[in-house]
Amino acid sequence: MHGVKMMLAAGWLGLAPFALPSLAVELRGTGDLGLVIERANGTVAVVETTGRSVLCEVAGLGDLSHASAVFDRSARYGYVFGRDGGLTKVDLLTCGIAKRIVQSGNAIGGAISQDGRLIAVSNYEPGGVKVFDSAGLGLVADIPAVPAGGGAASKVVGLADAPDQRFIFSLYDAGEIWLADLTAPQAPKVTRYEDVGQQPYDGLLAPDGRTYLAGLFGEDGVVRLDLWHPEKGPERILDGYGRGEAALPVYKMPHLQGWTGAGDLLFLPAVGRHEVLVVDRATWQERARIQVAGQPVFATARPDGRQVWVNFAPPDNAKVQVIDVPSLAVATTLSPGKAALHMEFTPRGESVWISLRDENRVVVYDTRTLAEVASLPLAAPSGIFFTARAHRLGL
Amino acid sequence: MHGVKMMLAAGWLGLAPFALPSLAVELRGTGDLGLVIERANGTVAVVETTGRSVLCEVAGLGDLSHASAVFDRSARYGYVFGRDGGLTKVDLLTCGIAKRIVQSGNAIGGAISQDGRLIAVSNYEPGGVKVFDSAGLGLVADIPAVPAGGGAASKVVGLADAPDQRFIFSLYDAGEIWLADLTAPQAPKVTRYEDVGQQPYDGLLAPDGRTYLAGLFGEDGVVRLDLWHPEKGPERILDGYGRGEAALPVYKMPHLQGWTGAGDLLFLPAVGRHEVLVVDRATWQERARIQVAGQPVFATARPDGRQVWVNFAPPDNAKVQVIDVPSLAVATTLSPGKAALHMEFTPRGESVWISLRDENRVVVYDTRTLAEVASLPLAAPSGIFFTARAHRLGL
Repeated sequence: MHGVKMMLAAGWLGLAPFALPSLAVELRGTGDLGLVIERANGTVAVVETTGRSVLCEVAGLGDLSHASAVFDRSARYGYVFGRDGGLTKVDLLTCGIAKRIVQSGNAIGGAISQDGRLIAVSNYEPGGVKVFDSAGLGLVADIPAVPAGGGAASKVVGLADAPDQRFIFSLYDAGEIWLADLTAPQAPKVTRYEDVGQQPYDGLLAPDGRTYLAGLFGEDGVVRLDLWHPEKGPERILDGYGRGEAALPVYKMPHLQGWTGAGDLLFLPAVGRHEVLVVDRATWQERARIQVAGQPVFATARPDGRQVWVNFAPPDNAKVQVIDVPSLAVATTLSPGKAALHMEFTPRGESVWISLRDENRVVVYDTRTLAEVASLPLAAPSGIFFTARAHRLGL
Repeated sequence: MHGVKMMLAAGWLGLAPFALPSLAVELRGTGDLGLVIERANGTVAVVETTGRSVLCEVAGLGDLSHASAVFDRSARYGYVFGRDGGLTKVDLLTCGIAKRIVQSGNAIGGAISQDGRLIAVSNYEPGGVKVFDSAGLGLVADIPAVPAGGGAASKVVGLADAPDQRFIFSLYDAGEIWLADLTAPQAPKVTRYEDVGQQPYDGLLAPDGRTYLAGLFGEDGVVRLDLWHPEKGPERILDGYGRGEAALPVYKMPHLQGWTGAGDLLFLPAVGRHEVLVVDRATWQERARIQVAGQPVFATARPDGRQVWVNFAPPDNAKVQVIDVPSLAVATTLSPGKAALHMEFTPRGESVWISLRDENRVVVYDTRTLAEVASLPLAAPSGIFFTARAHRLGL
């Protein structure tokens, strides 16, 4: 890093036209930046992964419980989806809010279109998807999630961007999957898949942008849709994966965006069970079950697929386990600290950042040595999102 | 993009301390930037893929025939490897040379370490790998490629970064593959694999960082090394893939870094044949051969793996063909213009940039409609490299 600082009047940015003090902005690349959600106080922190430091904080983002973020294609702006329907465009370079709207009463995440021009938000109340232009956050399209049989709009979950300028998502109450083509953004073309199963509670698009999976909460199984063959419709896989055994109470729903592929395998946190399921991506059959230290929340592969890191629901959320993929066994149990909520790998996998909500810090591990290499004080940190996500499909 | 320009004295950057004119630097993210090699005049152009424009040009990089580039983890700096042994650190934000050295007499490319701190260059003369610190380009390690039996140092090809802070490369003259562990950068630990086959002419590490493949020029086959099981050593695959047929004269060696995976398949430009080989990554057997319009140079998958784009050696280098992966057939033959040398996809695959050396321009295609959507005038363009490469393994 050059230590160059450039001084400019804050008014030049259009953020605070009457502000007198000048604003120091470092001339820097944005490839090693990220956002950490500080859920308790409506704040996000801008971090950088080269020196492993907190650059600044941005306040005023509303209710950030269960918040997530995506990034524009230049990796300068983060779009933060709050639980209260807030959608905030954060400028990571100037450390400010470029734009903020409250677009619904209750939201659960969002996605950015393949070309970077559209932001889609999945809403619980009113149920549906709203689409905004990424520059000014103007409303472009509104897609209420009214089921095939009519009635109340459904909560929408598992929203992901898909190739060819599409979004895909699941209707929790209605048991449907919708594929929306936004190549003509004002007139989305929606393909509906009905009766896919009861209560799809989350969904994921594989990193190759081809396979959409929705986990079912009301039934014991998973739905798969192959976007190379959407005409074939959804298929059920892993039917009855918990059958015949008493389910444990579910302390926290697993996150399917944590489902990750490692080579030809997919690692899936089982709902309500102390297990990670290993699925063969060629046959979509269960290959193995790995016993873990609690109910898994995220099962996230290191970018090279050599390890899968797992965190847990309470009361086991002070532990993190590392699965060795070649042997399909837990190799190491770590105790990073209280309430390990989220894990984010640096894009080439040498480090993983773990938020410890109840210790008010984020820790960084070297994934080769498994040693803690940094600790950053942050208020009740939860989600961690690095800008390299700007360049990936299906987030 | 905000149109903000920031004025700063050029001297602040340490580039031209006595220059009087100030330098306008736009405050911007670096995620949508790239470099295009203008091979005829030792110049690189800085481009951006959102508005599809040329931002500026940087001259003085020496002999850029067969040049390539990697990027630092912040995506601000590009490291350009010239044929004449030149290694130039280009600042994409200020559009200048941050540092330049000539580190050998003849070089063929390079890589950046997983943590971003080391730059490795593969040299023909003197044969070997030199490793530099990415900040100041100071020499960190020198690894002459002296074969197991002694003798002259070998030309080095197929250099790639591997997980756990390693580099892997092949010795063309010696028929060896070396795996160098740089966790202690001043004292590299090198594992040598001898007698892998005659004249490995290029190599590639799969995007997951696990499988290294080296193509053989002196024999009819490919060598595979599994980095999850390096103790097993290299194995031969695709033995005799051209056996029993008269080989065509080779007009241009294919580039193996163009070898790309699409799901469970790998697409390989055959040497001297009008064919793309399709290899099953589970069995490493040949699955299919696709007849194409000439001797393929690059066979590059769209990031979602749904298409593979192929360009050709002379005299067929005015064509580009698009393979449809589900049907394993050529779907479209395009005629973008004369001497289509290189193709680079935007990271989420909506566009592909193609350099047309003999038309002095780069064209951009929409990969969904296959329509040309932009044309940028550039002098004899060859390699195109986008900053999203900063976040990928094996480049």
